[in-house]
Parts: sequence; structure tokens; C-alpha cells
Amino acid sequence: MNPPLAIGIDLGGTNIKAAVVDRDGNILHRLEQPTEASRGPGPVMDDLADIVRRLSPSPSQGVSRGDGKHPPLPPGEGRGEGTIDRVIGIGLATPGPLDLREGRIVHTANLPGWKDVSIRDALRQKAGLPVTLENDANAAAFGEYCAGAGRGRDDLVVLTLGTGVGAGVILNGRILHGHFDNAAELGHMIVVVDGLPCPCGQRGCLEQYASATAIVRRARQYCDAHEAVPLLRAEDVANDAANGDPLCERVWDEACLYLAIACVNIQHAYNPSKIVLGGGLSNSGALLLDRVIAHFRKHTWSLHTDAPEIVLAQLGPDAGVIGAAMLAMPPTS
Amino acid sequence: MNPPLAIGIDLGGTNIKAAVVDRDGNILHRLEQPTEASRGPGPVMDDLADIVRRLSPSPSQGVSRGDGKHPPLPPGEGRGEGTIDRVIGIGLATPGPLDLREGRIVHTANLPGWKDVSIRDALRQKAGLPVTLENDANAAAFGEYCAGAGRGRDDLVVLTLGTGVGAGVILNGRILHGHFDNAAELGHMIVVVDGLPCPCGQRGCLEQYASATAIVRRARQYCDAHEAVPLLRAEDVANDAANGDPLCERVWDEACLYLAIACVNIQHAYNPSKIVLGGGLSNSGALLLDRVIAHFRKHTWSLHTDAPEIVLAQLGPDAGVIGAAMLAMPPTS
Repeated sequence: MNPPLAIGIDLGGTNIKAAVVDRDGNILHRLEQPTEASRGPGPVMDDLADIVRRLSPSPSQGVSRGDGKHPPLPPGEGRGEGTIDRVIGIGLATPGPLDLREGRIVHTANLPGWKDVSIRDALRQKAGLPVTLENDANAAAFGEYCAGAGRGRDDLVVLTLGTGVGAGVILNGRILHGHFDNAAELGHMIVVVDGLPCPCGQRGCLEQYASATAIVRRARQYCDAHEAVPLLRAEDVANDAANGDPLCERVWDEACLYLAIACVNIQHAYNPSKIVLGGGLSNSGALLLDRVIAHFRKHTWSLHTDAPEIVLAQLGPDAGVIGAAMLAMPPTS
Repeated sequence: MNPPLAIGIDLGGTNIKAAVVDRDGNILHRLEQPTEASRGPGPVMDDLADIVRRLSPSPSQGVSRGDGKHPPLPPGEGRGEGTIDRVIGIGLATPGPLDLREGRIVHTANLPGWKDVSIRDALRQKAGLPVTLENDANAAAFGEYCAGAGRGRDDLVVLTLGTGVGAGVILNGRILHGHFDNAAELGHMIVVVDGLPCPCGQRGCLEQYASATAIVRRARQYCDAHEAVPLLRAEDVANDAANGDPLCERVWDEACLYLAIACVNIQHAYNPSKIVLGGGLSNSGALLLDRVIAHFRKHTWSLHTDAPEIVLAQLGPDAGVIGAAMLAMPPTS
């Protein structure tokens, strides 16, 4: 018996990423193509089904077993259909909010015009494989849990610091969904009462201070006010801060401070053993991590030694596809 | 077969409350006496064992079946020892932090001098019954979940607003403990970065704005500054605020605002169906609830309709003993 494989798909507003993943979270094949979401759900779902067909290798191709110890399987292995019968399911990660019970995208800012799309059943029908649907931030967290920074832990909180601040919480090995399927929306934790407005309708959301987008926006505002050269990426802000630029220093430090405050609140909410910082912002590595940890130590309580380890994510932009695929794997016995 | 009973004990810094509780969370007998914690763990544990003996009725007393339908059991019912054999275990709620695996009080501000006390095994030995140990705020939350404001829900967050702000989180019918057993310490959620100092070592903890103690302290500070009559209870602050006193209005409104912000953060963290406000502050009823709900509606997001219902607790000061006893019950099949 060969161990099972699953296909993970990360359906984003810009790109579709997909991969065949093995039981250990290794990517064996991958594909990426533009979503072109404006075409609407129908054509995009046709694309998804086509991707599944292209990723399930034909009899003439074979597939690496991905454990690094065995040679690729010979062409034709399996029940006369190559190794396609080893792919036992599809994990599909999409932006939320989702109705997980019904397998439905309720509506989402990143896929404009998509509303009440029963994507799980539609893809199952087109691809002929069982489909597990999950929120993209949760899938990324599950990926880090299974095969990245969270390996060997039973609990984990992952913050994905990109366009927004996504989050996923793993408790006892399971994704926390909550009563309304919207748990772990930690980007909308209020860190400043009556602070900066957020498109979600709140003020002072973490996302408005500590996402890559927010950092660039805030740095530009300061720079424009001081007629300095505009900045393009959060990494530039981090680097300029490290080089002593006072405006970038202020924005970067504030982002790290609010992330640290969020980590304190996460500590007291879930008491996890680890908090993982991922997403584009984590490309700044130690410039991010060291500063967040320093603020965290200064702001957390001294009553107990229950501080979570704060670390960088390990899977980069693959966390979503890997996590989605792992969700489609049968539980290990 | 008579349904089982359990003894719940709520060991506080001032008083020990104990009760025999039935499967439905009804109190059949109760006892309360001063803790006199300064005597140290030994004598207090002797008291606990004595309480257990007094609560397990002797053959000559009988005990109400507590279902409201049956008369008290006749003296001598059971295996020649009255109904003592219906009490199947003890649930013990104490202030934390606890080591739940080892059944140990690590140390606690409310029982001065108690450090590394293996209370679970000691009481089991003295009382001859299995003992389940739980943090008092978690036990109170479990009580509300089983027999109070949370009946019929699978998830619930309970804030106990008293001397401090305690909290308990129930997810899928189970208390959330976290990796270090300190989950749901929501009184130490930071709501104001670099805000009021807290004895825990942090600044800006919810507890410093929204506990009964904090409300009285803050109101007194304002009153002293304005040479007004000092206030004694949080309820007085609530009433004076309702009667238009501007100083009390300011303190009371700020407490309700920060509680509402905490509820928004709880919504996004756990996405529960219900948040329950308990503890002494909930004695102010609608003065508390209506104001918290109004602030919550103003501050929560407009993206989704996933707002938890915010309600008052129903078990009052009995939540802890009832919850502790329910934790000692076998799971229903």
C-alpha cells in the first residue's frame, strides 16, 4: 500500500496555487496560474477541475514518492491509471467568510461578485474526488502545524501578516472554527480603542497597524508629509528603520509593538505553546521577530512563565496549499 | 439506579462554599464557612474533608432526590450507609494558577503562603472520593454552561466581574485550558496600551478598568479630587451614573466601554454564540448589560452577523460550586 497523496488548492484573489502533497507535507508537483476572478465562479471552477486533472499524473509520467528515500514510482503503477488513485482528496483554501457546513463561499472581498457559491460540491462533482473546504488563513495555520513551525505541537496560533492580518488557531490538533465559523479573526482584534478606521467597520484593528499594507501606507503618509522618497514594500520600511530612518523607525516599531500586544492577548486567550509569524512581513526575519519579542517581554505579565514561544513561519507562501492538502488526508491511526 | 450526586467545593480566600449537587445542577444541601487560609493548607484540607463528611448524609437523615418529583429518600437507603454511595465524586474549585495534571495549587494571591500544594491527592485520601480540581473562574463558567445562562450551548465565554476579572471559555462542551493551563485569563487582556498598571506586571489590563474593585477605586479617585462623598460599591457607581452624576457616569461608562471592547475581541478570538457577564458587577443588571451591549454594537464589525449574544449570568455566587460538582459527574452517555 502506497501512502496517500492529496491535492491542495489555494484560491486567492490574484492567483490559484495548487500542489500534490504527500502525508508528510512535502510538495511533489505544483501549478500556479492567474485566478481572473472577475470571470465569475463558473469558469474559475472549470479551471480548478482542470488543475486537478493536470496534477493527477498520467500513466506515462510517474510521480516522486516524496520521501527522499524511494525513486519515483514507475509509469503505470497503480490500478492501470498511473498513480492517480493515490490522490485521495482535494483540500480547497479560499478567502472567507465561508459556510463550512454547506461548503459555501458566503461572500469575500478578494473574489468580487462571488456570493453564496457552493464551491465544495461543485468541485467535487467536476473533479470526482472528495473536497474539504477551509478558510485560507486557517489552512495556512494547519500547514505550519503539520509540516512547518508547529510540527510536534498540539496547539498553535499563526498570524499571516500580508495584505491584511489573517490568523488560524489550532487547539488539540484541530482548527478552531467557533460557533459562526469566524473564530481566530485576530486581525480585527481591537488594539487601539477608537483608533484607525478599518474597512470592516471597526476602529483600531490590529490589521490597521501591523499588516504589510498598513505599514507601507503609514510610512508613505509620514514620508509624504516630510517630502521624502515614497516606500514601496514593508521590507523597505523595516530596512530603513534598521538603518536609522526616524519615520520608518516609528512606523515599524509601532507595528511590532501592536503585534506584541496581540501576542500578549493571544497568550491570555488561548495560552498556546507557540505563536508563528508568517505572511509577507515575515520576510523581514529578525528585524520583525526580535523587535516583536522585545516588546512582548516588556508588556507581558510577570505572574507566570507561560509565555508562548514566538517564531517565524517556515513554509512561506506554500503554507496554504500544504495545509489544504493535509486537511484532505485521512487521520493517522 | 438513582442518578449520581457530586459535591462541589469553592475554596476562596475568604470563604469555603460547598454543596451537594445533582445531575441537573440543582443544589440539594449546602455549607459555607470561613477559610481562615492563614492557618495553612493542612488545617484547611482537614476542614474540606470534614465538610465532605457533613454533606454526605448519614443513614438517619435521608436526602432529597432533587428532581422535584420524588420525595426524599428514606433513611438507610443505599448499601446500608444511607445515600452516601450516591455521591460519586468531589469537584474542587480554587484560585489559580494550578497544575491540573499534578492536581496542585502552584501559588495564588488569594491563599497567601500556599505554594505547591498537592491538594487533589490530599483531599482524595482524606475524603475517600475521587477529586477533580479546577480553576475557580473555569468552574464558574462550567456551572453557567451546564445549569445557567449557557444551557443548551456548546460554546460559551463567561466573564466574572468581581475583585478582579476572571474568565472561563467552553468550546465544544469542554473547558479551554491551553498548553500551560492558563487559557482564558481575559482579565489580563490589554485594552489600553501602556494604560493603568496591574499587579500582574502588565499595563492596561481589562481588570484595571472593568472589575468591581477598579470601578470603585477609580470613582473614589475622581470623587476625592472633587471632594465628593466617597463610594463604597460598584453598584453605587452604577446607580449614581444612572442618576446623572458626571463623575460616576464617566467611570461606569468607561468600564462598560472596555468590557464591550473585550467582547469584540472575544467575538473574533473564539466566535462563541454567547458571552455571559457574571460576578458582583452583574448585580447592576440592565445598568451593566444595556450599556455594554450598546458599546458593543457601536464597536463591532459590520462585515458579518456573527455577534455573540451578551447576557447576564444566572447562577450568581453558586456558579463555582455547581460547576465544580458538574465536573465531578461522569459524562452523560
